[in-house]
Amino acid sequence: MQRMAKRTHIRLADGRELVYYDRQDDVDRTAPDTRVLPDPSPASELRNDALLDEWVAVASHRQDRTLLPPTDECPLCPSGPGRATEIPASDYEVAVFENRFPAFRHPNGRCEVVCFTSDHNASFATLPLGQAETVVEAWADRTAELSAMPNVEQVFCFENFGEEIGVSLHHPHGQIFAYPYVTPRTRQMLDVARRNPGLFEDVLAAERAEGTRIIAGNELWTAFVPVAARWPFEVHIFPHRKVPDIAALSGDERAAFCPVYIDVLRRFRGLFDNPAPYIAAWHQAPVRVDRELGYLHLQLFSSRRTADKLKYLAGSEAGMGAWLNDVYPEQAAELLRAAV
Amino acid sequence: MQRMAKRTHIRLADGRELVYYDRQDDVDRTAPDTRVLPDPSPASELRNDALLDEWVAVASHRQDRTLLPPTDECPLCPSGPGRATEIPASDYEVAVFENRFPAFRHPNGRCEVVCFTSDHNASFATLPLGQAETVVEAWADRTAELSAMPNVEQVFCFENFGEEIGVSLHHPHGQIFAYPYVTPRTRQMLDVARRNPGLFEDVLAAERAEGTRIIAGNELWTAFVPVAARWPFEVHIFPHRKVPDIAALSGDERAAFCPVYIDVLRRFRGLFDNPAPYIAAWHQAPVRVDRELGYLHLQLFSSRRTADKLKYLAGSEAGMGAWLNDVYPEQAAELLRAAV
Repeated sequence: MQRMAKRTHIRLADGRELVYYDRQDDVDRTAPDTRVLPDPSPASELRNDALLDEWVAVASHRQDRTLLPPTDECPLCPSGPGRATEIPASDYEVAVFENRFPAFRHPNGRCEVVCFTSDHNASFATLPLGQAETVVEAWADRTAELSAMPNVEQVFCFENFGEEIGVSLHHPHGQIFAYPYVTPRTRQMLDVARRNPGLFEDVLAAERAEGTRIIAGNELWTAFVPVAARWPFEVHIFPHRKVPDIAALSGDERAAFCPVYIDVLRRFRGLFDNPAPYIAAWHQAPVRVDRELGYLHLQLFSSRRTADKLKYLAGSEAGMGAWLNDVYPEQAAELLRAAV
Repeated sequence: MQRMAKRTHIRLADGRELVYYDRQDDVDRTAPDTRVLPDPSPASELRNDALLDEWVAVASHRQDRTLLPPTDECPLCPSGPGRATEIPASDYEVAVFENRFPAFRHPNGRCEVVCFTSDHNASFATLPLGQAETVVEAWADRTAELSAMPNVEQVFCFENFGEEIGVSLHHPHGQIFAYPYVTPRTRQMLDVARRNPGLFEDVLAAERAEGTRIIAGNELWTAFVPVAARWPFEVHIFPHRKVPDIAALSGDERAAFCPVYIDVLRRFRGLFDNPAPYIAAWHQAPVRVDRELGYLHLQLFSSRRTADKLKYLAGSEAGMGAWLNDVYPEQAAELLRAAV
């Protein structure tokens, strides 16, 4: 990766922001949004759960969000004659825009949609390397930009993939949540790290030394099934250098992530006859506090435990936060290494 | 409720324990288990997730557990001529036995199945009050007995109801997990309570004073939708007197719980055309530590958010522990109060 992608900011008809990311300099991104749109949905209400000391975002407008529209009505495809989508351009490389049905919005956070490609039928696993690098550039740029906004405490880049996970649109895309608080899982992870200096480094070093659960890697990244995986198929991808977030990765590190990630995603696709549903979650350090404690990593996991069975979060997990995993991490690692 | 249910201990063919709970003294519970059974499954392996400082139970034998057998092969129905089930008696009131496919077992915890009734087609919501009282007696007795076992740190009584929750057997039943550790959610709740003396009492008093989210109740119990509910339909049922667990409830409190709980369960059934799936989770204090901090309560919740839509735990919840709820708690309370 020699240089950053070019970015172009525009506004959609209802005032929401859209950013194009392009490797080519000579593309025209001036096409206007020709739609007449109602005002964006209001922000969610943040409520405090006193018993757990956690925030819950409550909203009713999201009940009506677009759910699995037919391909010719996909709002993430480029616009064309007679059809104006969320993306005014007639083609694009990577586009990021503010979610029309956001859980969080100004002045208390923000929700964005990241279109990985204009190709409706692609997926992250099938992206050319250069295209994947532009997505990483977009994640890095959005992380930096959202981190600079008032009231944003943590930036979360993620992808929900597959109908079994509840995705509402098939077009290859991810999301970014800029939370107005530090999320519970991050808070807990950093509390543990505070009591155990060097914990992330030790965990990574132990996995690399033992090797039995490693799935893929190169000089800058290692992908492994964690020893106490919660999900039937779960892989953590760590950079070898400790950085707080994607924005802090070097150009070489950003580029080197892509082949490792795509390798692992293809193994998730190859596990069963049809691609396994997954969630890909970037764990980034908070924006304002404890940045020195965080260690960027991607957590990729699937709830599918056999070809036709899903892991459900039942009483133990959903009620008590106590996890049972029906697949041994070493067995999951073997199956993933064998899948192509 | 004037007296405790009679209990009878027997052993199943593979050595697992079964306990009958009966209100009548004159029932015959001597029928032997005539099956030839393999040894019970081995215990799960407990692994420590160092990054979150939590335990995960890993097992592969549970992949093969019985899944939705036809009614005439139901292992929770009474035994009959030519058909030996998990319960040797030809009829029973309430029966509890060690799970054949346990997540935890001796010497590191235990998993039990609680058959609420011998009637395959009933559900907790349709139990006669006296029958429900016997179930509460069984929960109380099992909590006391399991709490006395070495290495048991917390006893969790719960029910998973509905195929959408992933239940593997339709016969009305719940489960009890005797964990060899204090569960993450309880640990967090008690950490918060330690910093806020009187927190549970304050939350309950505030809900009773405000009243807008109350669903049902009587002199000894109150059921309400919490102000920061995580699930589309979530109800907490608190006794008015602070006790650490079900075993510490008085006879009057045990009896008074039943009509309130059945009232709420019937409202969950009435929300949609067919009964909403739910998880009912009893939050009990740990066995050995922080008992003075805990406040027994039942958390009942459904992942169904509309007649044909489920709430999925996607990136924000499953990755970050950050919850979005698409239904306002006050609206959920109104719908539940209107449902019958």
